[in-house]
Amino acid sequence: MPKDNITPRGDNYSQWYLDIVSQADLAESSEVRGCMVIKPLGYAIWENIQSGLDRRIKATGHSNAYFPLFIPMSLLQREAQHVEGFAPEVAVVTHGGGEPLAEPLAVRPTSEAIIGCSFAKWVHSWRDLPLLINQWANVVRWEMRTRPFLRTTEFLWQEGHTAHATEAEAEEETLKILNEVYADFSEREMAVPVLRGRKTDREKFAGALRTYAIEAMMQDGRALQAGTSHNLGQNFARAFGIKYQTVDNLEEYAWTTSWGVSTRLVGALIMAHSDDEGLVCPPRLAPIQVVVVPIYKGEAERATVLEAVDRVVASWGGRFRVKVDDRDQMTPGFKFNEWEVKGVPVRVEVGPRDVAKGTAAVARRDKPGREGKQFVGQDVLADHIAALLEEIHNSMFERAVRFRDDHTVDVADYGELVEAVKTGFARAPWAGTGADEERIQNETKATIRVIPFDQPGKAGRCVATGAETDQVAIFGRSY
Amino acid sequence: MPKDNITPRGDNYSQWYLDIVSQADLAESSEVRGCMVIKPLGYAIWENIQSGLDRRIKATGHSNAYFPLFIPMSLLQREAQHVEGFAPEVAVVTHGGGEPLAEPLAVRPTSEAIIGCSFAKWVHSWRDLPLLINQWANVVRWEMRTRPFLRTTEFLWQEGHTAHATEAEAEEETLKILNEVYADFSEREMAVPVLRGRKTDREKFAGALRTYAIEAMMQDGRALQAGTSHNLGQNFARAFGIKYQTVDNLEEYAWTTSWGVSTRLVGALIMAHSDDEGLVCPPRLAPIQVVVVPIYKGEAERATVLEAVDRVVASWGGRFRVKVDDRDQMTPGFKFNEWEVKGVPVRVEVGPRDVAKGTAAVARRDKPGREGKQFVGQDVLADHIAALLEEIHNSMFERAVRFRDDHTVDVADYGELVEAVKTGFARAPWAGTGADEERIQNETKATIRVIPFDQPGKAGRCVATGAETDQVAIFGRSY
Repeated sequence: MPKDNITPRGDNYSQWYLDIVSQADLAESSEVRGCMVIKPLGYAIWENIQSGLDRRIKATGHSNAYFPLFIPMSLLQREAQHVEGFAPEVAVVTHGGGEPLAEPLAVRPTSEAIIGCSFAKWVHSWRDLPLLINQWANVVRWEMRTRPFLRTTEFLWQEGHTAHATEAEAEEETLKILNEVYADFSEREMAVPVLRGRKTDREKFAGALRTYAIEAMMQDGRALQAGTSHNLGQNFARAFGIKYQTVDNLEEYAWTTSWGVSTRLVGALIMAHSDDEGLVCPPRLAPIQVVVVPIYKGEAERATVLEAVDRVVASWGGRFRVKVDDRDQMTPGFKFNEWEVKGVPVRVEVGPRDVAKGTAAVARRDKPGREGKQFVGQDVLADHIAALLEEIHNSMFERAVRFRDDHTVDVADYGELVEAVKTGFARAPWAGTGADEERIQNETKATIRVIPFDQPGKAGRCVATGAETDQVAIFGRSY
Repeated sequence: MPKDNITPRGDNYSQWYLDIVSQADLAESSEVRGCMVIKPLGYAIWENIQSGLDRRIKATGHSNAYFPLFIPMSLLQREAQHVEGFAPEVAVVTHGGGEPLAEPLAVRPTSEAIIGCSFAKWVHSWRDLPLLINQWANVVRWEMRTRPFLRTTEFLWQEGHTAHATEAEAEEETLKILNEVYADFSEREMAVPVLRGRKTDREKFAGALRTYAIEAMMQDGRALQAGTSHNLGQNFARAFGIKYQTVDNLEEYAWTTSWGVSTRLVGALIMAHSDDEGLVCPPRLAPIQVVVVPIYKGEAERATVLEAVDRVVASWGGRFRVKVDDRDQMTPGFKFNEWEVKGVPVRVEVGPRDVAKGTAAVARRDKPGREGKQFVGQDVLADHIAALLEEIHNSMFERAVRFRDDHTVDVADYGELVEAVKTGFARAPWAGTGADEERIQNETKATIRVIPFDQPGKAGRCVATGAETDQVAIFGRSY
């Protein structure tokens, strides 16, 4: 049903997003400029995201560890490009325990510098490599314009940091994380399809050799960078002295990588799937996958229906994350509305007639109204729900793929690019420079999101320079 | 076997602790004064602690959420006792994004102030209560003398924050957390027995009505406060405006609580159980519960033994957290030593004769040497290990209880107290004041750890004032 307090996407996409965050009770602003409070439902989604990522990060051989929140300014300054990129965004602690500090401390904007110091102590020989570490932490970047989840001064993330004996191994790690961890998680758990590719030099991480990214399309056609993986070359190893003895007893600098995703993924999840009725949560990450609403009038019906509900839910034996909404003071309509706004994938209704017939009504969140409602026998309900959750995931993913494909245009020249990025992505032949990218951004607000791995082989004339090229780039406006 | 690089407990307990932390590779110092790096094994123990606590926190009805790292100084100052307690320990951010801030921000030393602001927005009616929130976060307290895990400038913790309609409900919550979450976790998962009780006014949390704590005894007889739970009364509700409308339409301040445990528990775990050979990790929290060491000479034996090891471990089907140490370049003796230092509860050795006989040798970490070694048939190995892990937990717990009882003296007068706290706890009749506590601390370094819930009913003459009293207090030197 339409919601008074949610601006339709078509009217104002940006306000719609803020309305979803607020009405679904995911987050709110705080007393601190640019910092948000992540409320229980928003945090429960993040916990499920953490769990899916952590499993993949450990399965690919990484161990979690924890490094200090503070980084002495002198350390941050060791890698020249790194400090140039991050110094303007840093929050600085100048006093501790009532005294001015001898050296100011940066609140970590990312941890290459402090982790680099540890790696220099941990790595001595080729036997110590690869060193595969991940950290779950909060970081702070002083942002001017913030939006809940998408861009906040403090955010939560994981940051992987690894060291390797060769450039090839560092490159392999960088790509493995992008493909086996980030893209796999995004598509298989968030139901958000992503383009994979390399960032241009203009867009890469401060201090990296190469940055790879996954990019998703939101429902307004804009891009959201959902994860990045950096091959840092030997830049940080040189700056922090991460050296090892090779098999042949030579001293070499290690090759390092870093990679991260953040609470921004919650924003991606919201913007990729939700509708004008509220949040639509992908089933594998939904804190509540199934809400059961008993329907009754009066005490006798109440007892009969609740007894049936208890019996049915008990028979599922923890197969799903279930909430039985047996609040007495609210009507079923109020409850339907609340769980719709909060994005619960499957709603089960049980009334007295269902009890008599041994059935239940099952409604799916991603297809509102009659279209998504079915009556199902209680004896087969668990299997039905399990299959339905799978179907909802696949349907959400396919819809998002279709939307992206429908909003991606192969452009032949700059005029077509200008048009295409108004509503989505432009796939454009590209042989330009950073200066060309900057000019295009100034004129169209679009940037190169990635040079995709998936290349057509033959492209055409570069939209900036007119030179023949075999390479395409994906242009889009971004969050 | 004795370790060259671990100082025996009897020689220097404090150095022994540092040696265990370093030799078991749990943590190390960092470039930032008072902040440690938690290394993978230390962090894996913390992850298991988190998991056991989080399960209990959710089972008692609490939801996780996340609040900002920064607290505007003016907010921290709203509750008078609170700021008095924490202001001297605060790290202060004065610059952000290259500019001085209009108002300095405290890095949270605890989150009552910032969470109080949110609670004031979230609570309107009695229907919104109880409000049961928990946060996993890092906090910073500027400490002068630090020790890994036990006292560090930055540490990791959970902090629960709840609001209730009545004092009785807040009190019930405070005690439920102490008993059902903290004490239950400590005893059932850490195998660390704890005394439960109330803190004196002198020792309570800054701004609390009453503070309860669990206190454990370390192997040097000193106390370690392992968790605290505070009934905050209406102090914070008044300071932050957490008001609700009662059933009778009256406006009332809510009653709030807060409670926390931290990475200090890792220190408690180490100091309660470990020995001169290294870490002894309680089985339920051990990142590796069973290490399997294949024993062979030459290629043919190697193939036979590894095939058997793979088959046996596969047959356990994920029942334990297992590591097969099949590193070729190390001797079995080297491996035994490494896993002994790192505290793995059970070691399984499989050699060619074991393969021929269908057996394995099983050694337990908590009883080193011949005493703890058994030969077990491979067909019953899984059940044997499962039972052994239980037995190890129980044995570690009982040993710790025995140690505490052996080092706790019922004292009749001050002279006996002075002696008793040199080696352990004194259980003393108590009717003194804060000034009496201070004097005793100055003279003996011992403080009242708790007024225990477990009271004898009839005590004797107060060790400070000589007045007849029915109450005993537990005195001890503490970490």
